[in-house]
Amino acid sequence: MTSAKIAVIGGDGIGPEVTAEAIKVLTAVAPDTFEFVDYDLGAERWLRTGEVLPDSVLEELKHVDAIALGAVGAAPGSKAIPSGLLERGLLLKLRFAFDHAINLRPSILYPGVPTPLAPGLVEGRTVDFVVVREGTEGLYCGNGGAVRVGTAQELATEVSVNTYFGVERVVRDAFRRAQARRGKLTLLHKHNVLVNAGRLWNRAFTEIAAEFPDVTTNYLHIDAAMIAMVVDPSQFDVIVTDNLFGDIVTDLAAAVTGGIGLAASANINPTGEYPSMFEPVHGSAPDIAGKGIADPTAAISSMALLLDHLGRPELARRIDEAVSADIAERGGEKLGTTQIGDRIAARVA
Amino acid sequence: MTSAKIAVIGGDGIGPEVTAEAIKVLTAVAPDTFEFVDYDLGAERWLRTGEVLPDSVLEELKHVDAIALGAVGAAPGSKAIPSGLLERGLLLKLRFAFDHAINLRPSILYPGVPTPLAPGLVEGRTVDFVVVREGTEGLYCGNGGAVRVGTAQELATEVSVNTYFGVERVVRDAFRRAQARRGKLTLLHKHNVLVNAGRLWNRAFTEIAAEFPDVTTNYLHIDAAMIAMVVDPSQFDVIVTDNLFGDIVTDLAAAVTGGIGLAASANINPTGEYPSMFEPVHGSAPDIAGKGIADPTAAISSMALLLDHLGRPELARRIDEAVSADIAERGGEKLGTTQIGDRIAARVA
Ligand SMILES: CC(C)[C@H](C(=O)O)[C@@H](O)C(=O)O
Ligand SMILES: CC(C)[C@H](C(=O)O)[C@@H](O)C(=O)O
Repeated sequence: MTSAKIAVIGGDGIGPEVTAEAIKVLTAVAPDTFEFVDYDLGAERWLRTGEVLPDSVLEELKHVDAIALGAVGAAPGSKAIPSGLLERGLLLKLRFAFDHAINLRPSILYPGVPTPLAPGLVEGRTVDFVVVREGTEGLYCGNGGAVRVGTAQELATEVSVNTYFGVERVVRDAFRRAQARRGKLTLLHKHNVLVNAGRLWNRAFTEIAAEFPDVTTNYLHIDAAMIAMVVDPSQFDVIVTDNLFGDIVTDLAAAVTGGIGLAASANINPTGEYPSMFEPVHGSAPDIAGKGIADPTAAISSMALLLDHLGRPELARRIDEAVSADIAERGGEKLGTTQIGDRIAARVA
Repeated sequence: MTSAKIAVIGGDGIGPEVTAEAIKVLTAVAPDTFEFVDYDLGAERWLRTGEVLPDSVLEELKHVDAIALGAVGAAPGSKAIPSGLLERGLLLKLRFAFDHAINLRPSILYPGVPTPLAPGLVEGRTVDFVVVREGTEGLYCGNGGAVRVGTAQELATEVSVNTYFGVERVVRDAFRRAQARRGKLTLLHKHNVLVNAGRLWNRAFTEIAAEFPDVTTNYLHIDAAMIAMVVDPSQFDVIVTDNLFGDIVTDLAAAVTGGIGLAASANINPTGEYPSMFEPVHGSAPDIAGKGIADPTAAISSMALLLDHLGRPELARRIDEAVSADIAERGGEKLGTTQIGDRIAARVA
């Protein structure tokens, strides 16, 4: 990586605000390394032009080295923008078009971060795990339909699609990560009810486990995982799960490790054929947009995942350490968006 | 209700242990009122006879006034019993055969109950809400399949089925309950991704809301609900959601209000054509079965829901009050299964 081209999609709501700080930190940790290209996509673009993600833009994006995304999506109750239009037309479109099979979501409870959990449950324990969420299948394929829409006889379906190809690669990725960490991998599913998908996930998990005898494995139903996550999140090292369960459990994981304002994520294309994408787990939070109060930490930490992915782990660790040190120094104090960005940028420089 | 016939299905693991205490309390609060008929169903019956729920038993069960169920299901890792066989062949079979559309799951944080949440988040606030979970549709229909099973080309699907008929009745039920409580109803879904099912749920919710102008409504994506549930569960009054989201959120709700050992539930047939079923939210917990340490409180509280359903709210409240008083007196002390049953039975007598 001498010079790398990063596509920046700030998106909606607080997205552009937090992304600006992420880019600030990335530039501070690696000056003269990145070329940034801004893409004006999201709610405003759609309202102005009716375009969500033009084909020409998708084509251009194919050739960048990585994508830094802020957040996408109108307010849930918005009347101007149909529900999910931007999420599906932009965020999910990119995840699917660029085959982002591995949706990586680390959760670390940094010292000094206020957690909603009772002190006794986390004191003296290390909460540091990563969820490997499948990113290209499951209920996210848009494979549903409806008949007799708008009538009392309406029937609406949603189909969860699971292939061995898709499951195998994410499970294998998770085993590798577990092996490189504390050697523990947990599969989350609901195979007592979702028997077809469950059998496939179980088979892939069991088969690949045989190749990783040094990784300890266990299984939790997704409902039981909710309890485990709040009573003892320190039990987890690596978690692997499908697209929807991953969506749900990572928000809970973020909440117990200090909130969605700190949760970073990477959408990784496993073959390198397409650019990977780095984004905070949080959404566009329209309610606090424009106030300068959004926490950019998650967006900044996502840049560490980007650096890891581009083969610069030493720079990635500098961001991680700066984030951790800054959070400790803040001690729960609420700082503004640019203030946090400036502080972390100064630390990594 | 002069005399009512209750079918008792203890089931597996701790199921029979907690159910015995529930029946003890029910008999104490209403002596000479109930006739109990025991049904030997579950893992052991299946291992012995290969039968999960014979048609003749299903036919008999149709004619009882209510069903008290303990828990069903083998240990997740069990080799002797195929995954989900008992859950689907017995528990879900009963919910579907008896059209248990309304799966009611109250969560109350009783004074003195240890919660995994930080004290500051719940102190001085009332956490008292009920989840109305749809019970007969969604991903629980068993409407999935697989091709090329066992190969590298396997494809497995699961279909979420949502009908206006099914959604309307559960949403209406939830509005009624909200009206009779604190007047607030929250819809949980993921309509930005599950657009077909989401549109149907939204429409039913919006239409019925117009009939209940005194009920305040809001909407949360299921992932955002995870965060809301741990940072401020006091914000909820009534929650309505689909079968799978309801499964997931009620375990989390149980966890934050003192654990699955306290969470009661009712599976209600809305027309009264079939018997309703009352059961703790927790599973069969094979790891602690036979030790006499399972907490029967959830099973006991489920009997209050049974009494409500059979038109004896004054007796139901006696159980609720006894449970609450006993929990306060326990003060977090761990008591045995029969000990708790005896104490609550003595209080209601
Ligand atoms: C915005 C939404 C489509 C998205 C998802 O469901 O994946 C978000 O919740 C996330 O977790 O990245
Ligand atoms: C045992 C299982 C099938 C069941 C469900 O998923 O509904 C349980 O988790 C519950 O919540 O009652």
